[in-house]
Amino acid sequence: MGAVESNAACEPLSEPLSRVMTLLGKRWAGMILSALMQGPLRFNEIKRSVPGVSDRILTERLGEFQELQLVSRAVTETSPLRVEYSLTDRGEAMRPAITELTHWAEQNLSPSA
Amino acid sequence: MGAVESNAACEPLSEPLSRVMTLLGKRWAGMILSALMQGPLRFNEIKRSVPGVSDRILTERLGEFQELQLVSRAVTETSPLRVEYSLTDRGEAMRPAITELTHWAEQNLSPSA
Repeated sequence: MGAVESNAACEPLSEPLSRVMTLLGKRWAGMILSALMQGPLRFNEIKRSVPGVSDRILTERLGEFQELQLVSRAVTETSPLRVEYSLTDRGEAMRPAITELTHWAEQNLSPSA
Repeated sequence: MGAVESNAACEPLSEPLSRVMTLLGKRWAGMILSALMQGPLRFNEIKRSVPGVSDRILTERLGEFQELQLVSRAVTETSPLRVEYSLTDRGEAMRPAITELTHWAEQNLSPSA
C-alpha cells in the first residue's frame, strides 16, 4: 500500500462499524446474543450458556438489546409464569456475521493455531 | 421451536465462539482491528481512527494482538524510526466477518433504524 493511501487511511471509522463494535464491545454482549441464536431461552438458560455472566450484567444487556429491538421478551401466562427471551428479526439478521466470526475463530484462535 | 430443542439449547457456547467474543469483547478491540483493516498504520494514526482510545489501552490491545499473531509490528530504520502496525494473514482473514457485521449495522443500527 502506497504512502498516499496510507495517509488517507487513518480517518475515524464509519458510524455503523463504530456502533456494532460498541455493542459487541460491552461485556458479554456477543456471548449473550450468540446464546440466543440457539433459540428462545429463559434467563437461567442464558446463564448456563454463558458461564460466568452475573445476574446484573445479564439483566443490563437484555434490557439494552430490547431497547435496540434485537431481543424480545415473551411472558407465557402459566403458573409459574414462563419468561423467554428470543431474537427479533433484527437480532436474527446478525447470524451470518456471527457465523463468519465463529468460522474465523475455529481456524485462527484454536489452542493449537 | 419445540420444547425438547429448547431444553437442549442452553449448553455452553462453543469454544471458538467464546474465544472470538472474548477477543472482541475487550474494550476497543474490534475498533482497533477494524482500523487496521484500512491498511498499515502508525500508533497515532490508529488513535485518530479510534477516537477515545487511550495510549494505555491501545498499547495493551496491540500487544495482545501481536501475541495472537493477528497484528505485526514493523520498524523502518529511518530517522526518526517509523513504526507501523499491520494485520497478519490471520488478522486479515477476519475481514469477511467484520464486513458482515458492518453490513448488519448499516441496516439495523442506524439512528433511524
